Amino acid sequence: MNILILGAAGFIGTNLTIKLAENKDDQITLVDKKMSYFSKIKKFNFSNVKFKESSLDENMDFSILKGQDIIYHLVSTNTPSTSNQHISQDIQANVLFTSNLLDSCVENEVKKVVFISSGGTVYGRENKCPLSENTPTNPISSYGVQKIMIEKLLYLYNYKYGMDYRIIRLTNPYGPYQRPNGVLGAVTTFTYKALKGEEIQIFGDGTVIRDFIYIDDVVRAILNIVNGENKYRTFNLGCGYGISIKEVLETVKKVVGKDIQVVYKNGRSVDVPVNYLDISRYEKYYGKLNPVSLEDGIKKTVSFMEKEMVIK
Amino acid sequence: MNILILGAAGFIGTNLTIKLAENKDDQITLVDKKMSYFSKIKKFNFSNVKFKESSLDENMDFSILKGQDIIYHLVSTNTPSTSNQHISQDIQANVLFTSNLLDSCVENEVKKVVFISSGGTVYGRENKCPLSENTPTNPISSYGVQKIMIEKLLYLYNYKYGMDYRIIRLTNPYGPYQRPNGVLGAVTTFTYKALKGEEIQIFGDGTVIRDFIYIDDVVRAILNIVNGENKYRTFNLGCGYGISIKEVLETVKKVVGKDIQVVYKNGRSVDVPVNYLDISRYEKYYGKLNPVSLEDGIKKTVSFMEKEMVIK
Repeated sequence: MNILILGAAGFIGTNLTIKLAENKDDQITLVDKKMSYFSKIKKFNFSNVKFKESSLDENMDFSILKGQDIIYHLVSTNTPSTSNQHISQDIQANVLFTSNLLDSCVENEVKKVVFISSGGTVYGRENKCPLSENTPTNPISSYGVQKIMIEKLLYLYNYKYGMDYRIIRLTNPYGPYQRPNGVLGAVTTFTYKALKGEEIQIFGDGTVIRDFIYIDDVVRAILNIVNGENKYRTFNLGCGYGISIKEVLETVKKVVGKDIQVVYKNGRSVDVPVNYLDISRYEKYYGKLNPVSLEDGIKKTVSFMEKEMVIK
Repeated sequence: MNILILGAAGFIGTNLTIKLAENKDDQITLVDKKMSYFSKIKKFNFSNVKFKESSLDENMDFSILKGQDIIYHLVSTNTPSTSNQHISQDIQANVLFTSNLLDSCVENEVKKVVFISSGGTVYGRENKCPLSENTPTNPISSYGVQKIMIEKLLYLYNYKYGMDYRIIRLTNPYGPYQRPNGVLGAVTTFTYKALKGEEIQIFGDGTVIRDFIYIDDVVRAILNIVNGENKYRTFNLGCGYGISIKEVLETVKKVVGKDIQVVYKNGRSVDVPVNYLDISRYEKYYGKLNPVSLEDGIKKTVSFMEKEMVIK
């Protein structure tokens, strides 16, 4: 099978590639904006993985889609906290890009498009957790709005052209290869800063609740969803329970085994207070997820950081 | 109050203006792509109505928003049946335009934006009628997808900036000033062709069911929704019951009082088989709609056509 991953050099793309590359029958092409982004994946020397540089915007050369069976769409130009600053540009970069991409998928007879949506933002703040896939979607960030716009396009293209797709409404993944000092990924960032003895910044009072999921569980579930066939094409993906930022801090402290420095900053209006998902649709069709506990996930993340990032 | 209507020269804009202009305390500015579009409204010589020409695309000069209290957004570059032909361009023309418009509304401190969405397309074809506002929205036309995208933007801008809005999910309006030979508006088109003795084309076998509403009922309800305050900002608007295309034909024949020529053509994939709305949210807050019956609406439409369009 020929697999193309757009926006492949990021956190999810890297972990997905490591798993997908195990199947030597598959030919995998990774696409991202700069060749230099692939430095980490290139170290694996996978025999069945190729690399391509592309603008990944609405003017990109889509001839690369030719002969592909599955496309993973992991491209996103923004994050929930930055997206509201330039809504029009982000619609252009994400929604128009996807519309052009889907046109080219139809033209090139791509069989399936996999889109990583956002379980943390599409539902907004009016609903009760755990949030099922049928919950009304009223995002309070442009990031979430764009994800919903793209979801609606996938539904339309499926209806109109029969193009198959999967939408994965992912919550907060963490673990190896996530940027440890980015604006996303509280668990990874806290763990990294705790190991380095750096100050940890918290937005709000630490009572914000999120659904954190270890990346290996994410990749395993994505592949089940992508390869499975049933009446649903949209799946929530998270642990299925909520953990407060305070609990994350305590668990990081316990695992790392030393005191951590925390500074509390004002909460952000794009943060919903509580967010965790109902994953019963996934579990009904693909069996119990049995996600790694937060403590074990942090332990694995620490091991990775100590080995790969020369922290100690 | 200063009222601005964008896309004002069309069917809804014309009827809305005729009603709004009754209140001489209001200053109304009508905007559309060409000055010539206003020829019908200009005949009324309203003292409190001004006319402006504008591109109504994402590059338009938004300085016109200054000092406006309410903006009616009636701009749409496509129809359900034509929209799927150029999805990207339509997203640009409708969604990006609206995003830029809303940025300018915030900047110019516009108090309220009224958007005419589409009760006939936003819900798609997976749900049972009558459709309430809480029904999941999975449009099968790009037209419907764009309406949903804009609805999500309005929600976001309200959350982010406190900008008030109303979304009216309108079904199939008919009556005076609707183009009698357009791709929209079965009732008006059938009535016009019956009066003229022209052939009527039907897509499908005539069993398609729609929720037809006479334009005076539409305008009255819109004004109730726009001026009302309650916890909801999104309202369905239709008669609340379904009528088949065959029934429309029979009623037109009865009212016009002569034989009509009908040709059946293949159904269109963008047409959902059955569509009518649950209007109980509207009626809970604004009283019974008591819409004009189809027969009476057609009679009024015939009177208008005979008087204004020199048919007989």
